[in-house]
Amino acid sequence: MTTAAALIIGEEILGGRFADLNGPWLISWLQARGLALRHMHYLPDDEREIAEAIARLAPSHDWVFTSGGVGPTHDDVTFGAVARGLGRPIARQPELVDVLERRLGDRLTPDALRMTDVPSGAELWWDGEIEYPVVVVANVVVLPGLPSLFRSKLQAVAHRFSGQLPAQSMIHTTLHEAQFAIQLAQLAASAPSVRIGSYPRTDPRSPWRVLLILESHDADALASCSDQLRALLGDSVI
Amino acid sequence: MTTAAALIIGEEILGGRFADLNGPWLISWLQARGLALRHMHYLPDDEREIAEAIARLAPSHDWVFTSGGVGPTHDDVTFGAVARGLGRPIARQPELVDVLERRLGDRLTPDALRMTDVPSGAELWWDGEIEYPVVVVANVVVLPGLPSLFRSKLQAVAHRFSGQLPAQSMIHTTLHEAQFAIQLAQLAASAPSVRIGSYPRTDPRSPWRVLLILESHDADALASCSDQLRALLGDSVI
Repeated sequence: MTTAAALIIGEEILGGRFADLNGPWLISWLQARGLALRHMHYLPDDEREIAEAIARLAPSHDWVFTSGGVGPTHDDVTFGAVARGLGRPIARQPELVDVLERRLGDRLTPDALRMTDVPSGAELWWDGEIEYPVVVVANVVVLPGLPSLFRSKLQAVAHRFSGQLPAQSMIHTTLHEAQFAIQLAQLAASAPSVRIGSYPRTDPRSPWRVLLILESHDADALASCSDQLRALLGDSVI
Repeated sequence: MTTAAALIIGEEILGGRFADLNGPWLISWLQARGLALRHMHYLPDDEREIAEAIARLAPSHDWVFTSGGVGPTHDDVTFGAVARGLGRPIARQPELVDVLERRLGDRLTPDALRMTDVPSGAELWWDGEIEYPVVVVANVVVLPGLPSLFRSKLQAVAHRFSGQLPAQSMIHTTLHEAQFAIQLAQLAASAPSVRIGSYPRTDPRSPWRVLLILESHDADALASCSDQLRALLGDSVI
């Protein structure tokens, strides 16, 4: 299973000044690509804290996606944090300097050049129609926070990501969780290759009370576990 | 400043099967109470990973709020994780057993009693009209994931939380960030008690290009820094 973590960076989101659009969008995008998102952290613009999160998450996931903090101002600290988290120095990237020169001409200020200081060894992904490459450092994909750019860049590089999520089976029951929790735990323990999630309804008008979702990469184990669970729940399954 | 962290627990959110409503709602609620949210982590139903997050966040924030994983089924691991993260044993809570006995009568199964096994030393907050108390372990406020319950419980205990967020000043400019980034960094460095955030517009039809938000607990420093920034940006301020 290909796993992913996400860091959504910005005080403005945690402080409620801007609603985050990138996190929910990324969840759907990863799901569509077959990647399993295991962690999504919203963090302030703090180089040390972002670096700690990178150091913790990069080794334990196939991919880490970051959103935000890549502009030219002092509160844009993502590249510095990624460098620190991965133990790499920061270096001016000549190809990025060329891109900015072509795009900005006379308007290429020393301020703008700050955006070309990236962790050493960064790869530049030039896919599709994007005007500025996606910067990737080891397994960390660094994306801008502006939702329109975040989406267009992910769409452009989408073909690079694919995974296989586990097969799924759903069962709806009219029972309360407390009427089958212990038997369910026993079933779950007997089928370690199947993950079983139990979700009470959020809408009291639903005809069922609990939705059970079974997931596994082993189709036979999934079918067998699903059959046993249906038998256990009997007539309450709808 | 009173600080907060949040853990939104559940595979079903990271996997895109349910949209999270609690995180955005909590952001607004904390903002209204004057608490500064510094971290919000979405995590799978994994006791070890949740425990690690609790151990990391509880000592460095005034409050940690958790959402989800408090039902009776095997995938509800929050209480175990909070206990592990804080280094406390789990114990059956007699008052919670009484509450469930009164509410469920004959339907009080061993399965349901699993919900009364909480970290030792847990406080029960009985505020307002709630039917089941809010369980608080040290500075960790454990809340159910069901959005209607999450909200009603937080509303009931709202009077227990209050803080003072920094005062704020906003400036809109028609300049690009790259036209003032270095001078802004110098100003920010000269006013360490003022946090300055720089946010490019998300809507290209906005008459301004960048929104600058200044924040400080020191009103004089805020006013002085704001004046200097307006002078620096000159006629571009709108």
